[in-house]
Amino acid sequence: MTETDLSALLGTIAPPDEAAMAAARRRQDSLAKPPRSLGVLEEISVQLAGVTGNVINTVDRRRIAIFSSDNGVCAEGVASAPQSVTRAQTINFTRHKTGVSAMAKYMGIELDVIDVGNLTELPYALGIRNEKIAAGTKNIAKGPAMTREECLRAIGVGIDAARRAKADGVEVLGVGEMGIGNTSTSSAVLCALTGIAPDDAVGRGGCITDAMLAHKRDVVKAALTVNRPDRNDPVGVLAAVGGFDLAAMAGTFLGAASERLPVVIDGYISAVAALAAYRLCPTVRGYLFPSHKSSEAGYTLAMEEMGMRPYLDLGMRLGEGSGCPLAFSVMQTACIVMAHMATFDEAEINDDYLTEVRQEMEIPT
Amino acid sequence: MTETDLSALLGTIAPPDEAAMAAARRRQDSLAKPPRSLGVLEEISVQLAGVTGNVINTVDRRRIAIFSSDNGVCAEGVASAPQSVTRAQTINFTRHKTGVSAMAKYMGIELDVIDVGNLTELPYALGIRNEKIAAGTKNIAKGPAMTREECLRAIGVGIDAARRAKADGVEVLGVGEMGIGNTSTSSAVLCALTGIAPDDAVGRGGCITDAMLAHKRDVVKAALTVNRPDRNDPVGVLAAVGGFDLAAMAGTFLGAASERLPVVIDGYISAVAALAAYRLCPTVRGYLFPSHKSSEAGYTLAMEEMGMRPYLDLGMRLGEGSGCPLAFSVMQTACIVMAHMATFDEAEINDDYLTEVRQEMEIPT
Repeated sequence: MTETDLSALLGTIAPPDEAAMAAARRRQDSLAKPPRSLGVLEEISVQLAGVTGNVINTVDRRRIAIFSSDNGVCAEGVASAPQSVTRAQTINFTRHKTGVSAMAKYMGIELDVIDVGNLTELPYALGIRNEKIAAGTKNIAKGPAMTREECLRAIGVGIDAARRAKADGVEVLGVGEMGIGNTSTSSAVLCALTGIAPDDAVGRGGCITDAMLAHKRDVVKAALTVNRPDRNDPVGVLAAVGGFDLAAMAGTFLGAASERLPVVIDGYISAVAALAAYRLCPTVRGYLFPSHKSSEAGYTLAMEEMGMRPYLDLGMRLGEGSGCPLAFSVMQTACIVMAHMATFDEAEINDDYLTEVRQEMEIPT
Repeated sequence: MTETDLSALLGTIAPPDEAAMAAARRRQDSLAKPPRSLGVLEEISVQLAGVTGNVINTVDRRRIAIFSSDNGVCAEGVASAPQSVTRAQTINFTRHKTGVSAMAKYMGIELDVIDVGNLTELPYALGIRNEKIAAGTKNIAKGPAMTREECLRAIGVGIDAARRAKADGVEVLGVGEMGIGNTSTSSAVLCALTGIAPDDAVGRGGCITDAMLAHKRDVVKAALTVNRPDRNDPVGVLAAVGGFDLAAMAGTFLGAASERLPVVIDGYISAVAALAAYRLCPTVRGYLFPSHKSSEAGYTLAMEEMGMRPYLDLGMRLGEGSGCPLAFSVMQTACIVMAHMATFDEAEINDDYLTEVRQEMEIPT
């Protein structure tokens, strides 16, 4: 993928279908319930209409694309787990033994596990896709994580994952990752894109001690000082202080929007990747669906930049895409309501006062 | 059900199984993930262990008990919908055309629809259970909603629903309701049980105008002034200013705890019923699972009294039990993780630093 290819792809991302959204809103307002009483479930159904162009949708065929890669910043001792865990857990995804992959197996969700930059070769025969850009990134505290060309290639890997999902008939795609050290890179990208101070953005990630948290903040500060990323160049930011996983995830958000495929943000890392995609093309916003409020403070900062609020608040910080199955359940519920609830006429509920309330709420009849 | 019967039932409610909870916590801490990184999903699995006595649980067989009844307070003009909607929607539950019943049909959830006090006879042959105490309650703004004996009978109807669920092999029970006017009665019960001012507890319910909201607050104040309920007598509070639905729901929470069956709170009305049950027997708390944050302010006040936080924040205020299917999905996900994730040994992840972090977090090895 070249700069030109990426620009061309961004040009294919169209705004959500306003006419379908208006029709969906009319249908929601016709369903036999107090006006707007299903809250975010109604908003989800309207947003899905904007994505697909259809008032009635299903999200039964669900997939999570998981991007696995290693981060050179681990040399600074910022992570709670050894770097070998990236490899071990990537293999475990195929055994349905990690958090997200156990959920996927028992909830009927497909996984697309992609090596976008592990340090070592992986047993690809197990069902891991080999899209390795390089054997891990460089240490962002000393220089850029990758070249701009590598970053564009990683974005391309992500776009391809979205295209593959669409071609396979997937109705909703989630995004996950595995890469020890990637809360450090995510914090650096978030700070670079927004100007937020590292002390506010950097959290405990997997789980680190107080002393290591202070060190992690210093490492992110060093990465920003050494690389001086330009906040108006999201590709440059991802290349300088990001990771292959972050770049690929940003690509998946863009690719999904281009394919008019609804796509779910997991936790902190994917929220930062979504923000990078959003900065490249704000129109992508209409195709993004949140899941859960990560307990990493940076998650909320990234989501606020996009004006998004998560559906669930469960104090989770596992990553892997583990919030996506829960978001899928919420979205499936929203689709069921939209498709199967009775309208006021069908429910034989008629009421002059209700008409008055709807007028006060400026809901068209 | 007599006072003696109720006291006997309360005596059967045992504390959660501490040994099973400790074993569940040990298993969670052995799973290959950063310590406590699945947040509330971990807490749910530990709580379920306390309820059932087993470390590994499933909540695949799911049921929602829906209590339908009419409220005399509708004579005060406090509700946005006509009282006939109680009957219409109760029939619609059996047609799978309301919010919760559409969800139930397409998510594989059973419904137990119970007429505990509709104004009129219902077509019971459709599958509605006839447990009518009376043809609606009296107007709480003028006097007590029901007699104490009627309240005890309604509590008994709710207890029976929990026993029936347990006998049928249900693994998790949700609680819902249908009864125009029941946000007014719920507010009156909440204020009576806690001393919270009606201006803080009373919200817009289905959806009312500003003028009607002020009137609704006055009606709740009148109910409290006329009836002077004793906050230390929850049965008396429910009889004076509650409804047949609230009393039955309180009974279901108590019955579920007695049967060691996990039970889910829906929105505002069921949260107030749960608070009444909790005041009768604080031990019930270990058997209660929240679902979503209702947009009624009183919901949060009731939950705070029990120290509970909802899993979802979707701005919903439909009632019917419509938050329960979403909570069931979260609980099912928690069960999957507990049963199927690999331990550190199985995942072949070993790390001295992780041991150190766990020590700092005081997690036993």
